[in-house]
Order: sequence, then structure tokens, then C-alpha cells
Amino acid sequence: MTRSITIFDTTLRDGTQGEGISLSADDKLKIAVKLDELGVHYIEGGNPGSNGKDVEFFRRVKELNLRAKIVAFGSTRRKGASVEDDENLRLIAESGVQAASLVGKAWDFHVHTALQTTPEENLAMIGDSIAYLKHRGLEVLFDAEHFFDGYKNNRDYAKTVLRTASEAGADWLVLCDTNGGTMPHEIREIVTALAAEMPDARLGIHTHNDCELAVANALSAISAGALQVQGTINGYGERCGNANLCSVIPNLQLKLNLPCLPEEKLAQLVPVARYVSEIANVHMPTGQPYVGSSAFAHKGGIHVSAILRDSRTYEHIAPELVGNKQRVLVSELAGQSNLISKAKELGIELDPKSPQAAETIGRIKELEHRGYQFEGADASLELLLREAGGEVRELFVFESFKMLVEKSAGKPVVSEAFVKLRIGGESLYTAGEGNGPVNALDNALRKALLQYYPQLTDMHLSDYKVRVLDDKEATASKVRVLIESRDAEDVWSTVGVSGNVIEASWEALVDSMRYALLGQEPAASVAAAEPRPGLLNH
Amino acid sequence: MTRSITIFDTTLRDGTQGEGISLSADDKLKIAVKLDELGVHYIEGGNPGSNGKDVEFFRRVKELNLRAKIVAFGSTRRKGASVEDDENLRLIAESGVQAASLVGKAWDFHVHTALQTTPEENLAMIGDSIAYLKHRGLEVLFDAEHFFDGYKNNRDYAKTVLRTASEAGADWLVLCDTNGGTMPHEIREIVTALAAEMPDARLGIHTHNDCELAVANALSAISAGALQVQGTINGYGERCGNANLCSVIPNLQLKLNLPCLPEEKLAQLVPVARYVSEIANVHMPTGQPYVGSSAFAHKGGIHVSAILRDSRTYEHIAPELVGNKQRVLVSELAGQSNLISKAKELGIELDPKSPQAAETIGRIKELEHRGYQFEGADASLELLLREAGGEVRELFVFESFKMLVEKSAGKPVVSEAFVKLRIGGESLYTAGEGNGPVNALDNALRKALLQYYPQLTDMHLSDYKVRVLDDKEATASKVRVLIESRDAEDVWSTVGVSGNVIEASWEALVDSMRYALLGQEPAASVAAAEPRPGLLNH
Repeated sequence: MTRSITIFDTTLRDGTQGEGISLSADDKLKIAVKLDELGVHYIEGGNPGSNGKDVEFFRRVKELNLRAKIVAFGSTRRKGASVEDDENLRLIAESGVQAASLVGKAWDFHVHTALQTTPEENLAMIGDSIAYLKHRGLEVLFDAEHFFDGYKNNRDYAKTVLRTASEAGADWLVLCDTNGGTMPHEIREIVTALAAEMPDARLGIHTHNDCELAVANALSAISAGALQVQGTINGYGERCGNANLCSVIPNLQLKLNLPCLPEEKLAQLVPVARYVSEIANVHMPTGQPYVGSSAFAHKGGIHVSAILRDSRTYEHIAPELVGNKQRVLVSELAGQSNLISKAKELGIELDPKSPQAAETIGRIKELEHRGYQFEGADASLELLLREAGGEVRELFVFESFKMLVEKSAGKPVVSEAFVKLRIGGESLYTAGEGNGPVNALDNALRKALLQYYPQLTDMHLSDYKVRVLDDKEATASKVRVLIESRDAEDVWSTVGVSGNVIEASWEALVDSMRYALLGQEPAASVAAAEPRPGLLNH
Repeated sequence: MTRSITIFDTTLRDGTQGEGISLSADDKLKIAVKLDELGVHYIEGGNPGSNGKDVEFFRRVKELNLRAKIVAFGSTRRKGASVEDDENLRLIAESGVQAASLVGKAWDFHVHTALQTTPEENLAMIGDSIAYLKHRGLEVLFDAEHFFDGYKNNRDYAKTVLRTASEAGADWLVLCDTNGGTMPHEIREIVTALAAEMPDARLGIHTHNDCELAVANALSAISAGALQVQGTINGYGERCGNANLCSVIPNLQLKLNLPCLPEEKLAQLVPVARYVSEIANVHMPTGQPYVGSSAFAHKGGIHVSAILRDSRTYEHIAPELVGNKQRVLVSELAGQSNLISKAKELGIELDPKSPQAAETIGRIKELEHRGYQFEGADASLELLLREAGGEVRELFVFESFKMLVEKSAGKPVVSEAFVKLRIGGESLYTAGEGNGPVNALDNALRKALLQYYPQLTDMHLSDYKVRVLDDKEATASKVRVLIESRDAEDVWSTVGVSGNVIEASWEALVDSMRYALLGQEPAASVAAAEPRPGLLNH
């Protein structure tokens, strides 16, 4: 009989322990929505006892009514204190979550050295804390910290810790390889033994990648009887990261035939992985297994000709299963069907055989080749597709912009922008100030457009990201700017690419306003459609 | 009895199949020297039949008299042709190497589909080619391509392929998981069966990372009896890469007690990994297991206080064993103990009870509150801590900068920067151009500083990140800029925060140069220390 495996995502908690990963409450909520869509069973959101950002997350996530269980994380009560006086446990109980993840020590060395208490008090801390949360109606997942190190050093104590947690009512016993130093064969042996000794316990596995074995260790534990796997999107996490769910999930589902996500969700892995990397503002390695842009990329020669005969010759799975695509680095053959289906999704008729479709696809491919990335910029992609159908009118004819930033010792920095453009027959030359260059450009451009499109007052830019595209010379290479904009109802993202961050920002800014005004008529009369300002073609 | 495991490095051959990896003959020779110093047993240099670069490599590598065996790679002869007429085999024989790696098909599906020949002819191609090279005095490693897929689909044929190679004189039978789709338990079962059936064969393992299991699969095969492991430095290779020797080697040596390198060489792993990533011009992920800069970095407050009591609490090995070091990251999640231990790590005396320490900690906390993030900007933090000890001299007195970006329709965008500052008694006013504003600022500032500090020619900016700190009004809110810089030996990161992205970039840029020049004296005479330019305090 096939077991079904439960997926516990800790991107929002353990993932943020990774160096350089910092998520706002807004970021966390956005990611939670995507994880829920993907179909993970548990979403660990943070530690309500650690900071106000996490408290805000738990307050707001309730309004989203996600299907996944939201989990709050915390530690067992303090040594020598009453569980009733424990602020952290109280905050977990009050956070309104359905489930709590409670970490306790399973390695006696840690009890002595880190907690500086007795093995008995540690057991009492575990038992009391679990009972407290169970009593308040929460599902409790007990994280047995350093379980494998503990088992190898003092097997009896490690097992007593699990039994204590189980007797106090823990719903799950999660075995943690906290330091990431355990080998797959050790995990297999230990979990096999436990599964035999505690046949009724529901075991989970939580692994770290310090030996580049987090995924293998998770699979080892699952094969030996564990029923839940914990990890993060893209493997984010402290030191070398956590088990990467983007690899664990397809390995379970496609290789070991252990279902975990609804089957049709697997193809969401690539978009989710890329979305999370965009929000976290962390480069996704091109060679990331399953979801990286090189994961099914074939470099010239023998491989390519074999691939063209039968893709199974050099592909271990069909890339579409995880939402990825084959790339043949010499001749770009992929992507077309994605674009056609994207157009359909937007209600745009794009006959795959028409020269118009071929031209649009060619143009998008060329832009991607130049560093544009439309996964994080849906609005820019929609504009390109609607342009193919002749639906998009240009807002203005661009003539020039100038941007000046000036800073003198002891004085505040000054940013000014000057924009020259034509709308209909009218020439406009406007100036704007701002506390940054993009703000100054935004102000100057709005000043010109608002006379024609007063609706623009309702929109504003809500996020701004810059990414350097190649590593050789950071200040002399291409950058990609992503701008997120909002009005009362909608949120949309646009992209610009240039060797110059100001020009890339301008491009994304203009697209953002074009998108805001899709299908809207100017308030004042504007002459017939003008040619595209040509910024993309400079 | 402890087996000794042979390390076969294919960074220079399979590694260069990775997207974005390209090595000149010079690059390859430099890397070969490092690999030899590390103590690997085989260095596969390339395919003399494929291009002139590899021919040059094989010609010049002989002059280096390395201890490692140099290996040339090639395929079995063409179907239906004589081995004597095979240009590739002739070039291998003439390249002067001691050993050849010869790839042949072990999966009948590939024989039909890719080679388009009969199973019998494929066996003849393998036998003939190995015999040809053995006859010319070479050691031959037979790469059984797609061995595991072949074994699972047609076990008899896959085993016949191995027997044919063995009977033709192959010294090693290397089992390749070419598509990277095999699971560790399958590798274990298959290698165990083969080792029992062919007790005299020397088996090698060559794995790919398509399921994020290349390292686990290599260990599986070694545990089951294989004696040679093939892989690349940093796991470079086609698609998702090859088995990463920087993880395989310490796992074998420190975890499985299987010696492979001379014991004292293990501490060379970090410098070798970084050197190869520099030569290949590919960023090393900070979280790379064992050798990444975050591999022993600690962020959480509880972790840090435990680490300070005993590093084994959160470190699976002593980082020095592989040439790495412990780092304590400073973040909102942690407090004073992090800063004190960070100072200690840098060799800075900072008495936790001194007013100086309290002032520095207060200043860092205030900067964090204003949006600075030091966990991604070690160099800026180090500058602040050294300032507390009076160790840091200002490079110049800031007077002003101006930055102009101009774009007219149909013309390329232009960026110019003007920097005014004083060094010693001298006033300097310099101008710089660039393809972006930060590049222009960098150029103008360098122009002024290079007269005093010619060492700056060696450093360059290698990454640039911008993050908006709150979402309310993206173009009118604070931004944080992180700049990563490099020179031949070092990588460091600096941070700037401002409402203005240009000012934030300037701040990070100046810190980057201050860090590069820590402890260095100006070439020309500069007057005594000047007051801090006060950018942080505008």
C-alpha cells in the first residue's frame, strides 16, 4: 500500500535563518499564499515570541483562510520556571494557529552544555510545554533537536525524550539532524529501529545540508518509515540550508512513488521556486536540480542530437512534470506553448501558426536572452502579448529624460529629474524632485501624464528590486529592475533591463503606468496612436 | 581493514560542460597545479579530439611534472569503422598522457536510439577501443555511460558491456549515472550485486546532481564497494552539475573514515574551492557545504550563545579541518554576545563591560534600526568594530559628488559622475563616466584615490544588490545597497542605507575601498587622520 507523505514547509521560519535572507511580514504573507496554492500541508510562519514582524504575520495570515495548517514555532519552557509564566508559550497559544512546532533537546550533551540543566528537568520542560499547548487545543509537532547526534551518543536518553513527548500528547515526533552531520545510512538505521519500536508514533524528518546530504537524508528517513518531511523552498536555511523541498517533493513523487502533493500541483514547482527567490531577492542557481534554468539545458554536440531523437536519452524526467522546460543551448526551441497558453489565460487570441505569434514569441525570446525575466513581471509580459493583438496604445512619445543626484558634505542629498515627451500634438517638459532618483523620475513623469490620465493618482510603486545579471564587473554589467505597483484593487509587476540602473528603472516605471492604464481612455483628447517610444530598441 | 579511495577529478572536462563555465588552456593548467597540490589521484584534462585548447593543455601539462595522473577523455571508435582509422583514439594515444577515460554505451536503448547500431557492434566498439589504447601502454578507465539506467532496463546487456571492457583490458570500470536520475538505494543495491559478481574488478562511480543526490549516490557506491569516485570542484558540470568533490572528500575522510587525500591536505579544500571559482569566474554560493563562507556561520541568538560555550553544539565538524572558519552573524535575532564574539574572531579586544563597547554596540543597533543589515556586510561591520579601537583611518575628506544620467530618444544613455574631496592638504576634483551611475561614481572616486593607493587597481565590485526597506512607497522609501567586492585573495561585502539609492551606493562603495585598504599606507604622503566625512550622519 502506498503511504502518503506530509509536507511541512519552514521557509518562513528556518529559511529566514539563512545568511542574507530577510523577509518582511508582507513578503511572508505573499509566500504563504503561494505555498498554500502548491498544496503543502503545514506552513511554519515564524516565532511569535521573537519579534513583532512574526506577530503581524500570524494576525494577518488568518484573514487569508488558507487550506494549509499554519504553524507557530517556539521552544520548550525555561528551566526551573512554570509553564504558565512562559511568555513565548502564551504568545503561541494566543497567535490563533492550529498547530505549534515545539523544539526541545534530545542530546544530553546539549542539555548540560547549552541549557545547563539536568536531564530530568529537560524532560519536564518538554512534557509540561507540550501538555500546555495540547490543553489549549493545538496540534503539537515536537522537534527533537539534535536527535541523531543524541541517539548516537546516548541512545537511551534520546529515546526517553521521544517517549516523554509522545506521552505528553505530541502529535508528531520530528527527528532533527540539526547540525547536518549525519550520514544517510545512519539515518536509515536509526529511523528503521525507531519505527519498529514505536509503531504508533508519527515520525517526521528535519535535515540540514552541511554535508550536501539533506535531500538524501530526508529520503532515507521516509524510506525507513517517517511520514512527514520538513524543508524549505530552494533549500534556504541556516549555514548550508535545509532540505530543499523543490528536490525532495519530485524525488518522493516521481522517483519513490510516494504521493505528497496533489498530482497536478507538481508543475507549480518551478514558478513557486522562482517566485520565492524573487521575493527573497536571492539568485536562484541556474543549475538547481529540477527547477533551475539549466536543469534541462543541453550544451551542443552529441547530447543535443540524441535529445532531439528521444529526450529520455539525456533527461531523467520530462521537465514539464515540474513546470520546467528543455533548453537546447544552441538552438532555442522551447517556450512557445507556454506563451500561447499564457495568452489564452489572459483572453488574448494568439493563433500559434500566425506570423504575429511567431514575431511576438521571437521578441520575447530575444528579450529573455538579453536578461528580461517575465516570471516576476507578469504585467510586462501581458503588455507584450497584448501588443501583439494591437490592444496596447502608447501613452506618449519619449524625447528625453535627465536625472541629477547631488550631495555636498553636511547637506541632504538632492535628486531631480527632467522629462521631455509628446502626447498627441503637445510637447511636455516637466521637472520633479524626490528623495531618490526613481522617485524623482516618477514625479516628473506623473506630472506630465496626470493631465491626461488623472486615474494615475490612485497607483503607487510598492516594491523595487535590482539584480546584477552577470558577475564579472558588477558596476559595469547589466542590471534587471523589478517594480511592483499597486492601486486600490490590484498589484502588478514590471521589468526593465539595461546596463544602467536608471534606464532599467525608467523602463519598468513606464510599463507600470502603461499597465495601470490598460483599456482606459485619456481624460483630455489625445491624437491617434503614436509609435512605440523605442526605449527597448536603443 | 580500511580501504583507500581514489579521487578522480573531472573539473577540467565534465566541469566545463556546465552552463557559463569556460576555461582557457592557461586556466586549466593553473587549476591542474592546484588539484595536484590537493593530492587528487587523477586529473581529467579534456578531450584531445575535440579542440585545440585541449591539445595545448596536454602538450603543456607534461612540462609541469605533476604527481597526479593526467587523463585524456574520448569515445569508443565509430560504428562500422576500424579502430586504426579513428582520429580521436589516435589523438589520445599521441597526447602523451598516462591514462585514458573512454566512454561507451551501457544502455541498449542508447545503442539503438543515439548510436543507431546493434548491441553486438557496440560491444565490438568498446572492446576494440580499449584494446587499442592498452596496446599503446595507457591505463584505461572505461566510463560505462548510463550504466544504472541500462542495468534497470536490460541487466544482462549492461553486465555484458562491463565484462567486454574488462576482458579487453580496462583497468577501471566506472559506473556512470549520466542522467542523474538514480536513487541512492538503487545505486547501493546495484553496486553491491556487481561487487559480489566481479570481485576482481576495480569499480568507480560517476554521478550527476539532477536529483540533488550526486554526493549521496557517490557515497552509496563507495560504501557498496566502489574504489574510485569521480567528481568536480564545487560540483561544476552539465545541467545540475557533477558530484561535488568538496563535499565528497570530507564526507569520505571525516564521516566514513575512508582515507582518500593525505590527511594534512584536507585543510586545502577551502582555498582550492575558492581558487577554482575565481578562475572559472563563477560565484561560490555562500551556503556551499564545508567550504562556503556561511557553512559555519551562526545567526540565531540561542545558537550563538551555545556555540560560545562549545562549538560542537552547532557544528558537525571543526571548520579548520577543511580550512574554513566559524563566523558569527549579527542580526536583529541576536544581541550583544554576537558582537563581542565577532570582535574576538577579528582579533579586536572589546571588553564587554567597557563604555567603548557599549557605545559601539549602541551605534550598531541604531544603524540596524535605520535599516543597515550587517550579516550580509561583514566588511562594514568590521570597519565599525575597528573604528571603536581607533584602528581605521579615513581615506579622504568628502566635499561633494554629483551624478548625472541622461537619455535621449534613439541615443544611448550616458552616466557621468563628479567627485570633490580632499586628501591631506590636496583638493581633488575628478570626473568619471560609466555605463551606469555606480560605475561612473566608482570610476570618478578611483581616479582620485589611485594616485594615493595604487593597490586599488586589484579590486573590483563583483555584486550589487538593492532592497527597498518598506513597501509603502517604493520610490520614496529607504533602500539598502549591498556591494560585494573582490581582489585576488578576498571577498568582502559592504552596506549603505539611504532614501536615495545613489547615496546608499556611494556609502557602500566608500566602505568597500576603506576595507580594501585596511592597514595599508598611502603611496604618496597624506596628512594625519582627518575627521570622518560624516556621510552616515547626514
